[in-house]
Amino acid sequence: MPNDATQAPLSEAFLNTCGAALPADRFLTDPADCLPYGSDNSRRTMLPQAVAIPTSESEVQAIVRACADHQVPLTTRGRATNTVGGTVPVQQGLILSMERMNRLLRMAADDRYAEVEPGMLNADLQKIAGEHGFFWPPDPTSAAYCSIGGNLGCNASGPRAVKYGTCRENTLGITAVDGQGRLLKTGVYTTKGVVGYDLTRLLVGSEGTLGIITSAVLKLTPVPAAKATVRAIYDGIEPAARAIARIMAQPETPCALEFIDRNAIAAIRAGARGTQVDLPDNAGAMLMIEVDGSPHALQAAIDAVSEAASGDGLVELRQATGAEEIAALWATRKALSPALRHIASKKINEDVVVPVSRLPELISGLDELSAQHNVHIVNFGHAGNGNMHTNLLGEPEDMDRMHRCLDDVFDLVLRLDGTLSGEHGVGIEKRPFIEREIPAASLDVMYEMKRVFDPKGILNPGKMLPDRTA
Amino acid sequence: MPNDATQAPLSEAFLNTCGAALPADRFLTDPADCLPYGSDNSRRTMLPQAVAIPTSESEVQAIVRACADHQVPLTTRGRATNTVGGTVPVQQGLILSMERMNRLLRMAADDRYAEVEPGMLNADLQKIAGEHGFFWPPDPTSAAYCSIGGNLGCNASGPRAVKYGTCRENTLGITAVDGQGRLLKTGVYTTKGVVGYDLTRLLVGSEGTLGIITSAVLKLTPVPAAKATVRAIYDGIEPAARAIARIMAQPETPCALEFIDRNAIAAIRAGARGTQVDLPDNAGAMLMIEVDGSPHALQAAIDAVSEAASGDGLVELRQATGAEEIAALWATRKALSPALRHIASKKINEDVVVPVSRLPELISGLDELSAQHNVHIVNFGHAGNGNMHTNLLGEPEDMDRMHRCLDDVFDLVLRLDGTLSGEHGVGIEKRPFIEREIPAASLDVMYEMKRVFDPKGILNPGKMLPDRTA
Repeated sequence: MPNDATQAPLSEAFLNTCGAALPADRFLTDPADCLPYGSDNSRRTMLPQAVAIPTSESEVQAIVRACADHQVPLTTRGRATNTVGGTVPVQQGLILSMERMNRLLRMAADDRYAEVEPGMLNADLQKIAGEHGFFWPPDPTSAAYCSIGGNLGCNASGPRAVKYGTCRENTLGITAVDGQGRLLKTGVYTTKGVVGYDLTRLLVGSEGTLGIITSAVLKLTPVPAAKATVRAIYDGIEPAARAIARIMAQPETPCALEFIDRNAIAAIRAGARGTQVDLPDNAGAMLMIEVDGSPHALQAAIDAVSEAASGDGLVELRQATGAEEIAALWATRKALSPALRHIASKKINEDVVVPVSRLPELISGLDELSAQHNVHIVNFGHAGNGNMHTNLLGEPEDMDRMHRCLDDVFDLVLRLDGTLSGEHGVGIEKRPFIEREIPAASLDVMYEMKRVFDPKGILNPGKMLPDRTA
Repeated sequence: MPNDATQAPLSEAFLNTCGAALPADRFLTDPADCLPYGSDNSRRTMLPQAVAIPTSESEVQAIVRACADHQVPLTTRGRATNTVGGTVPVQQGLILSMERMNRLLRMAADDRYAEVEPGMLNADLQKIAGEHGFFWPPDPTSAAYCSIGGNLGCNASGPRAVKYGTCRENTLGITAVDGQGRLLKTGVYTTKGVVGYDLTRLLVGSEGTLGIITSAVLKLTPVPAAKATVRAIYDGIEPAARAIARIMAQPETPCALEFIDRNAIAAIRAGARGTQVDLPDNAGAMLMIEVDGSPHALQAAIDAVSEAASGDGLVELRQATGAEEIAALWATRKALSPALRHIASKKINEDVVVPVSRLPELISGLDELSAQHNVHIVNFGHAGNGNMHTNLLGEPEDMDRMHRCLDDVFDLVLRLDGTLSGEHGVGIEKRPFIEREIPAASLDVMYEMKRVFDPKGILNPGKMLPDRTA
């Protein structure tokens, strides 16, 4: 159910301006039509008062100007796979849904870039790029149904970031409309360019609070000719954490280095409901290590990461190079997410990051916090970046305890030189904690920057930067 | 000779404040002591009225606050290898020389980063990182004597950027003092992080106009185990340009892809003064292609780039894998820079960039402009990024013609979706052209951003953004 409305009704003047800018089937005001646009994957909901579905830059500009003139909150939405409430219209107002701006504007394979509208799905881009022998490195779990615009807004990444980087390293330029309705063109069509300030990376990861991306020039990477997977199983979490640090300290950077802990393994076994799980009995942690590159170099890469993965506590190490074998090895890992749903009805899913050498301390610290707060914690994640999806699980009546535990988790992460979010973003969920990570002077600059792009404060209000009376 | 002074003498109050913050041997006001700090590699000079040589963040803050309070222009200087006048104190005032803040703060090999002060030389960092099996990808030609702070200020890169990226892709975090004396901490110690706006990349490439970098967390890359070079010689420039596009369209990305044109080859022959030059008589363009990686994959990489390099107009192709053989192949290319000094007494050295598929058009367009303006043009550069060092050569009396030609060169580059500078920066030299590349609304945002960081306009005035009465 949506929360209570707090915003005054939209004015006639505003409705008329928007209605003149967009046809009726792309400017919705009936609550029944608007409701589906009010929630995202955070499972929070707020009823928007209107939904605009633009198909061009100039329509975006018209709607933004109307919102600025009438002080109407505007929340931009891709496909709402965000887990931190980033696209929930907490102050109601208008949802700008980019779903219809989903065209490929240019495929420049010879120049290794694609120019796309923000509503294109990540998977659709991968398909188009793949036909030319390329891919775009960001690959969140939701790739099949999340939009490029949302990826850029959150600087989303996924497992391949360990070798190929995040959105920031794979975006050359952006066109965006700021909170004043100005159309901003940033960046270049080339892999080098130093004329003017870097507004491109500033917009990436700004969660729709600085501008609305209307197109993006994405850097493409050639698809590697070969790929192999190594699965390493350890008798406990700390030997696995030490193995991660060893793998990242040697030159063969894997293209994925995924980790799951003992509790995750237990969840997989429970989820299997008695059927055979392809894991040794004493499995206490598992690493999935993927390497890619030239077929000639693949065995050497497998050997290098296998050697680094080997050490005290290793229970089993398996290598797979064929597509079927690889799929079989990953099947166990892929059983985790569905299995987690059955453990508890409430889940706080974090994505903290620490330098890889601090992972053993993080893991042992989380163990202590789990015991201290009596909260069930399941850890898995993109270990090569030190990015841990720490899941706090419980029932509705445990939520207070879970939140106290989370508070301590964040302190632990910051003590280890880490950051509160690697790829999910701040949204609503992490706003109360942002001041712990970002020093006051840097935060001051961010508020001032926000005022440059959005002096009326209409863009995605209630997200990212905590409220301040300024 | 320095230009005429235009600034009023520094006030007693300002001198006393700075004198209290720094000992006499690190706060210079005698013109004879200050003069060496007034020029950079652009060969422009302006006498600074004072030079401050801080050794700590708090000293930097004290000097910046004094400059802000007394409205004294402040130009930050690393080792002044900048070619566009970036560190020339055009409005006199104070030079802040970072030469003594050159310490390694932390070497975190296990976490693939180094934290350094900005005065450290690029080469010194490479040496330290190399002892741990790592390198920092940016490697400008001046690496032996340029500072990390200067590299970051200009987003400098060099040949390896084609595979490993520029400073922006290889910097995790920064500490900087802004024009109000605020100490800003940006970024993270990890390869992922999405909390707050990306101030790190905003400071990188801002040419000292937004803040003074006091330390940086640099992402390190493992040194590849093996390296090989392929030299390809063509009978003309256009077949070489087409080969570059073919090489960049296939998956084996070279770690350097350098180009020199027919006039550059002629310069090398002239510079050799009758001694034998290791080039076929009909050489009209040369590519130096370097690949690196696992020793097992090296031959496959050599074969792949050699195949892509082959085509119409190829005159000779040679491969080298041993260190001595590689050095011999590079010797011809390295003879170019000294040789260029003998051709003409005046040189305008640009570093324009176009998408690689547009290189043939760029090269033929430059040929036409050379004929049209009767200006000798020599082209070489980092072809894999489409980054061409276009050198306009002549005598003092030709400078007007050379500048008219340059004007047309910039128009040509922008018509080809390119950018005016790939790595040298804007500085003084390219300020008059910045409005041709950056649309008015984006430029407005940059001015507003400048006011956030530096409301008094004291940081490196007269550089990058054109003057505006705002």
